[in-house]
Amino acid sequence: MTVTTVLVANRGEIALRIVRACRDLGLRSVAVYSDADANAAHVRHADAAVHVGKSSASKSYLNVDALLAAAAEAGVDAVHPGYGFLSENADFARAVADAGLTWVGPPAEVIERMGDKAAARATAEAAGVPVVPGSGVVASVDDAVAAAGQVGYPVLVKASAGGGGRGIRPASDESELRKVVDEARREASSAFGSDAVYVERALQHPKHVEVQLLADTQGGVVHVGERDCSLQRRRQKLVEEAPAPGLDPALRERMCTAAVSLAREVGYVGAGTVEFLVEGGEFFFIEMNTRIQVEHPVSELVTGVDLVAEQLRVAGGEALSVTQDDVVVRGAAIEFRVNAEDPDDDFLPSPGEITALELPGGPGVRVDTALAVGDVIPPFYDSMVAKLAVWGPDRATALARARRALAEYRVEGVPTTIGLHRRLVDEPALVDGDHDITTLERLLG
Amino acid sequence: MTVTTVLVANRGEIALRIVRACRDLGLRSVAVYSDADANAAHVRHADAAVHVGKSSASKSYLNVDALLAAAAEAGVDAVHPGYGFLSENADFARAVADAGLTWVGPPAEVIERMGDKAAARATAEAAGVPVVPGSGVVASVDDAVAAAGQVGYPVLVKASAGGGGRGIRPASDESELRKVVDEARREASSAFGSDAVYVERALQHPKHVEVQLLADTQGGVVHVGERDCSLQRRRQKLVEEAPAPGLDPALRERMCTAAVSLAREVGYVGAGTVEFLVEGGEFFFIEMNTRIQVEHPVSELVTGVDLVAEQLRVAGGEALSVTQDDVVVRGAAIEFRVNAEDPDDDFLPSPGEITALELPGGPGVRVDTALAVGDVIPPFYDSMVAKLAVWGPDRATALARARRALAEYRVEGVPTTIGLHRRLVDEPALVDGDHDITTLERLLG
Repeated sequence: MTVTTVLVANRGEIALRIVRACRDLGLRSVAVYSDADANAAHVRHADAAVHVGKSSASKSYLNVDALLAAAAEAGVDAVHPGYGFLSENADFARAVADAGLTWVGPPAEVIERMGDKAAARATAEAAGVPVVPGSGVVASVDDAVAAAGQVGYPVLVKASAGGGGRGIRPASDESELRKVVDEARREASSAFGSDAVYVERALQHPKHVEVQLLADTQGGVVHVGERDCSLQRRRQKLVEEAPAPGLDPALRERMCTAAVSLAREVGYVGAGTVEFLVEGGEFFFIEMNTRIQVEHPVSELVTGVDLVAEQLRVAGGEALSVTQDDVVVRGAAIEFRVNAEDPDDDFLPSPGEITALELPGGPGVRVDTALAVGDVIPPFYDSMVAKLAVWGPDRATALARARRALAEYRVEGVPTTIGLHRRLVDEPALVDGDHDITTLERLLG
Repeated sequence: MTVTTVLVANRGEIALRIVRACRDLGLRSVAVYSDADANAAHVRHADAAVHVGKSSASKSYLNVDALLAAAAEAGVDAVHPGYGFLSENADFARAVADAGLTWVGPPAEVIERMGDKAAARATAEAAGVPVVPGSGVVASVDDAVAAAGQVGYPVLVKASAGGGGRGIRPASDESELRKVVDEARREASSAFGSDAVYVERALQHPKHVEVQLLADTQGGVVHVGERDCSLQRRRQKLVEEAPAPGLDPALRERMCTAAVSLAREVGYVGAGTVEFLVEGGEFFFIEMNTRIQVEHPVSELVTGVDLVAEQLRVAGGEALSVTQDDVVVRGAAIEFRVNAEDPDDDFLPSPGEITALELPGGPGVRVDTALAVGDVIPPFYDSMVAKLAVWGPDRATALARARRALAEYRVEGVPTTIGLHRRLVDEPALVDGDHDITTLERLLG
């Protein structure tokens, strides 16, 4: 199952990132493209490219049949899904394998299992990884009070069948809890057809900290340190960094060990990320992402490990090129997502033509972008069009270099989040590293 | 002598490099510019800029009075000379100090001493640093033979007053030497008015290996590893790397220790480089450069030390931010000089307008360029307009990333050396790291 030619089943900066990893490894890369992307950078830089459909993602980058046909046409032996699109689609992973091709990612069963919230939570618990403390279904107010006594206040009363934030009631103490249980049951009943509710610890100001994993088919599993991705707007990360600032070293060690245990528990292969919430010296499993992540460059910058190259290596059956002892964190790295969105207009996506572009450079600056002057950002896909990642021997230097690089970064033709980042890097919460997942929404207020 | 505002007495990519270091340290930067550089990137990125004269370098970047006037006008408290131009001009260093400003570099006396070849050689010997073995003036053929017996064959017979390669005769054994001594004396006499000649060991295929130094005013001296800069054309370096491939670790340690001894011997302050030739397990002092060098990024990439920031720190009286133990080499880095020259036309400098520019990016790529689309490369200055530096966890990966980044690098409007570098990275001598200072001329044949 040696890999020699890779279909890059994605677009934009991550497709270019994969093309670059292929080049670095001496592999042939085959891009795919929709009508809108015929002249895109990921197409220009790949060794070959195959058209897969109309501009709409469902007709192209989400079109399993077209992608498999492209793979057959180009004679590839492996498929890298990138992030987003079909990257966590177990059916696609299975179809790729059924076509006799190598899937650059974990087995379809693992994608499936970790993609199911309840199964993922149960798997984490089985691996001894802490989850947010919660009860089973509570039958009465008194049951709820007893459960809250176990998990600790403040709590959330949540609909078992819930989703999208509905059927959730917070309670900071027993008297408040006694008031809201029946309200929650009524809302759950009307919203989901079931009045089953349970009690869960309410985290107030958690940090989002995630552990990067790599695993091969020979049983090798390493963590590549952690990232703090607390700066989020509507659950979309905007700024990420490694290592997580202010994280207690013993807690870091326990989190990384827990993530490795989970990977072993599920028979993980490839690159993956275990996401946690961290509050009050405790950490809680949220979910596992069974793919490469947008923010992977910060881990690469502090460790020197090429995560995408490792993905391709282990997909081809090779052992990881690094052991746990080889993974040494040096300095600090921060990534800023450059989205074609207008922060002054409620982050409205802003497709259009790039009329001028000046990229930052110099020491400690890494640019991942698929943009070029004259390129048109299509309205069909995610608005994240580029990333800026900076490294420094310490966090303060990384922040200083971020200020410098953001000042140099010039994109004309469409509004972007660069201006917002220029303001964020001077925010005391970010400078001091004491941001949590509520910080950015508060700052954007 | 705190530094808060720095006059950047240079242009092009090194001026931008210094502006970036100032930003990273929170210092104000003031650029200078000639008529030709009014809209140059180093001017656009600096906090302020002062016009210093006409386009000719002698009227602007070499014009001491204009530079001092600019310093006074802008109210700077320090002057960074970069490389080239006045960077190794002791009179300028002295004039800056006499004007009550901080010179970002070693004391004028040190520049002077190391700038005089004979004094530098004597200083190296005094510090116990090996120099190319040679004799004093030889009075007769028999004297020459006796001297050659001491230094070892092959030898060169050189005119004491010589220069520019004239009055030099090689001899590989005694019989050859007996033939050429008198020839050399006659040529020396007619060329330099003195028939004094001496005998020096002839190195056949030496590597150029140099040690990066940093020193502060508190007696702190560290080396920041070594670089191999053997790939030269007419003594102009084209490709540089760190660490030096194939260098015996014990030899490396002795060279680095020797360089530190030399720095201590002369009371060095700031960033400096001790250049050596290496052949047959021995190393020989050539010269010391009392300034930052073009190729400094490769040392920064493997150690994480910001050499220009350290220059500014120690100029302001601070101690170095690193001890010798902090300097740990990780991976390998290679730099490629992008010169606006036509390799297919005897490297003829090729000024002109940049009509299109695409910079490489992604993992392990550092771009230092002052170019932008629409910029005109003026004919008045050095033709080196940009640098590409790549890093990898090992040398093979660095080379692979170099191939990838060079393939991505697109400059249109003027011929450059990028195409030449694309060919060089596949040359067995470079791939195997067994190049020496004769390799590039041979390849260009």
